[in-house]
Amino acid sequence: MLPHPTPGASNGARRLAIALSSTDMSNDSSVGRLAGALRERAAALQPGDQLPSSRAIVSRYGVSPVTVGRALARLGAEGTVVTEPGRGTFVASRRAPLEDVAWQTVALGDARVDTTHLRRLLEVPGPGKLVLSSGYLADDLQPTRFLATATARAARRPGAWGRVPPTGLPELRAAFAATIGVDAGDVTVVAGGQSGLSAAFRALSPPRMPVLLEAPTYMGAVSAAQAADLRPVPVPTDVDGLRPDLLAEAFARTGAGLVYTQPTFANPTGTVLAAHRRQEVLDVVRAAGAFLVEDDWARHLVIDGVAPPPLLRDDRDGHVVYLTSLTKPVAPSLRVGALVARGPAADRLAAVRRAEDLFISRLLQEVAVELFGSPAWPRHLTALRAALRERRDTLVAGIRRDLPGVTVTPVPAGGLHVWVRLPPGVDDVELADRAARRDVVVEPGRPYFVAEPPAPHLRLTYAAATPADLTEATRRLAGELP
Amino acid sequence: MLPHPTPGASNGARRLAIALSSTDMSNDSSVGRLAGALRERAAALQPGDQLPSSRAIVSRYGVSPVTVGRALARLGAEGTVVTEPGRGTFVASRRAPLEDVAWQTVALGDARVDTTHLRRLLEVPGPGKLVLSSGYLADDLQPTRFLATATARAARRPGAWGRVPPTGLPELRAAFAATIGVDAGDVTVVAGGQSGLSAAFRALSPPRMPVLLEAPTYMGAVSAAQAADLRPVPVPTDVDGLRPDLLAEAFARTGAGLVYTQPTFANPTGTVLAAHRRQEVLDVVRAAGAFLVEDDWARHLVIDGVAPPPLLRDDRDGHVVYLTSLTKPVAPSLRVGALVARGPAADRLAAVRRAEDLFISRLLQEVAVELFGSPAWPRHLTALRAALRERRDTLVAGIRRDLPGVTVTPVPAGGLHVWVRLPPGVDDVELADRAARRDVVVEPGRPYFVAEPPAPHLRLTYAAATPADLTEATRRLAGELP
Repeated sequence: MLPHPTPGASNGARRLAIALSSTDMSNDSSVGRLAGALRERAAALQPGDQLPSSRAIVSRYGVSPVTVGRALARLGAEGTVVTEPGRGTFVASRRAPLEDVAWQTVALGDARVDTTHLRRLLEVPGPGKLVLSSGYLADDLQPTRFLATATARAARRPGAWGRVPPTGLPELRAAFAATIGVDAGDVTVVAGGQSGLSAAFRALSPPRMPVLLEAPTYMGAVSAAQAADLRPVPVPTDVDGLRPDLLAEAFARTGAGLVYTQPTFANPTGTVLAAHRRQEVLDVVRAAGAFLVEDDWARHLVIDGVAPPPLLRDDRDGHVVYLTSLTKPVAPSLRVGALVARGPAADRLAAVRRAEDLFISRLLQEVAVELFGSPAWPRHLTALRAALRERRDTLVAGIRRDLPGVTVTPVPAGGLHVWVRLPPGVDDVELADRAARRDVVVEPGRPYFVAEPPAPHLRLTYAAATPADLTEATRRLAGELP
Repeated sequence: MLPHPTPGASNGARRLAIALSSTDMSNDSSVGRLAGALRERAAALQPGDQLPSSRAIVSRYGVSPVTVGRALARLGAEGTVVTEPGRGTFVASRRAPLEDVAWQTVALGDARVDTTHLRRLLEVPGPGKLVLSSGYLADDLQPTRFLATATARAARRPGAWGRVPPTGLPELRAAFAATIGVDAGDVTVVAGGQSGLSAAFRALSPPRMPVLLEAPTYMGAVSAAQAADLRPVPVPTDVDGLRPDLLAEAFARTGAGLVYTQPTFANPTGTVLAAHRRQEVLDVVRAAGAFLVEDDWARHLVIDGVAPPPLLRDDRDGHVVYLTSLTKPVAPSLRVGALVARGPAADRLAAVRRAEDLFISRLLQEVAVELFGSPAWPRHLTALRAALRERRDTLVAGIRRDLPGVTVTPVPAGGLHVWVRLPPGVDDVELADRAARRDVVVEPGRPYFVAEPPAPHLRLTYAAATPADLTEATRRLAGELP
């Protein structure tokens, strides 16, 4: 019935139980020595031949089973051996190098998604760097002890690894709904903000249409728009956020049916949509018969005063689709967020979401439920606010002290980033490259614009570095500016 | 700077610390009584008014802080109150019902994605049902104790909730690579099979092109194809899997550049691509200058003999893009899988993946690493094989005993499902509805075809029910067949 023997099937019944452990106490050099010996041995065999059992290796080389497991894993990772669970470890068939991939270029066609900048932003910096990029809180600002305890508890609960409805765990939908002030039935759980954005763009606009984005805007929104086969069109902002007059003009000129905005502590500018513009923006969107995607990622990252309510609360006809996420105020790997929508748009979103990833891991949803219901949550937010204030103030003071030609515009009342304008003529991309050579990781402003930037900028994140590192960073940046 | 006071900001400094706990010992009726009392109280206040502090409620009503927390959470979920962490609980502004959503229908345009069937398949059946649908293992077949321990350990590790490269945790890429027999650099970690499929379809074909799918095929592939703006075109299969002659003809007629196939224990048919067809299929794909997406979800679900090696191993020019996942052999909420690709296609895939969800939760990846490195993994697979054999044999025996007009074609050597042909004239969708009224949940065959089905079928899953339930299920089905 199954005519293809796997490699080594003919070698009989020897079984190899691989015991790897991350709590391994054996040292790296013994693993390395054993891996070397086994590599030599494998080289003398044919592809498909079986290696000796773990027990045999233990007794032959006088090492622990843990060392054997780690050495075999290393050989597996480098492609020397293949482990078939429950059967044994076999010499891998050498995978031939690719012979002809030119055909792929024709088959793939033109590249619609450019994530070059997003890719750089997502790189995890090595040790010793002063990190003023990153869209996430530094490790020491995350409630890691709470998360460890809550996760251990959630993972023991019956059904923790089972199925969950595609719209999300009912308790989590209710918890999000309570925070936002909407009905639980309007909430769909998503795998973080990017996943929600990606689903929203795909669901809310026919393909090949323009989508209006604030200028500057979050570069992940640009990638998500491209991936949804939409054409990003910029709409200028000022210190009061999106400009309603130009928004109306952009709708009229392009025929777009969708605008993406961050009314509260926008990334990268930190601006808040002014009170007098809120109704005007909603009126323009209604008049255009369009959707507004409100990305409210920074609601829990308020430093000064209180955050304005979501635009969503003033929406009467289902124009606003709302997005929030726990990756920003909690931790990058708590990849749980919420989309809020009403009317046929909610059904369309749900269909796109199902086709995209079926449902979000129940375990992560259970951890989020624990968090919302715990006194640790308001405690974390209070502590976070104080820490963000200290770091923001340290960074702003450092910029004013060390970088006289650089303008902070404006000092953000929340969020994670300070958006600064560089002196005329400075190349922001080159500056970021030079800073990197001094181990200062900053984001150039250019990738945050989908058209010509009005001036050179940097995005400086204060949430990903300690106050001391922030101070050292502006000192080093001073050496790179004219 | 932030001119919008949130509701109740004027009510001053009273703070409400909400103490919820999932280990709550207070009983539901006291929560219900308190919720009722607070609901009345909220009704007498204005939107934005602050509720008394938790402490005040405790002393006024003589209940525990846990009961207060749960009652407030209930009021929050129903939209009566809004909790602002660290600030207090306020009477929610009543959200007006939608006034006019007809504009949405125009803005959304025609529905490109139909997930009606997928939605039904994803419904979590209530208690007391005999579940012969579901694409996942029953709870008792999942290694839940191992997962609980591994998760608790992973969640305590420093950085467990931090960032991770978009392509995945290096150790996990290496572990997948070792299992599959490829280089770790060719592996991208994805959030389960559906997410990988969705990314592959979007990355590998220009929009609006046809994509070839086996007939019948996994309905999630149909939805993913639609969501990627591709047009699903069926290619017939027989007991030896995909028919190379008709595959060649379909490429020629449609100009498609992409075929999706499950060579090993296909869902829903259970068939394996025959040895003599493997090279022929690859030759047809190469001649068409096309990609083949190999969905290898069932590799670890082998019952009889051994599974043939992946088609990927015979690929010399980067035509095969390979997909595997841990949700099927482990648990639905271990939403971790792997995509394998080489050449420019790998870069295109990575870009689409980044735009879709940035990266997969590090915690889940750490759990997967633990699993691959543990002796519990081969032990689980051995036990699983025995359990699946017992359930498959019980189901097949039940069909042969109770359902004389129904043909099992063929008895699957692995996977989760038996695909049966119904007597001519039976309506499979109606039959599934009638079975549901007897608490037997089965999948009609029609949604697994994108064109006219050749005969009525059912997909009967043996992995989601106990042997006793399987026996009872065929007995009940007998009463619904002519």
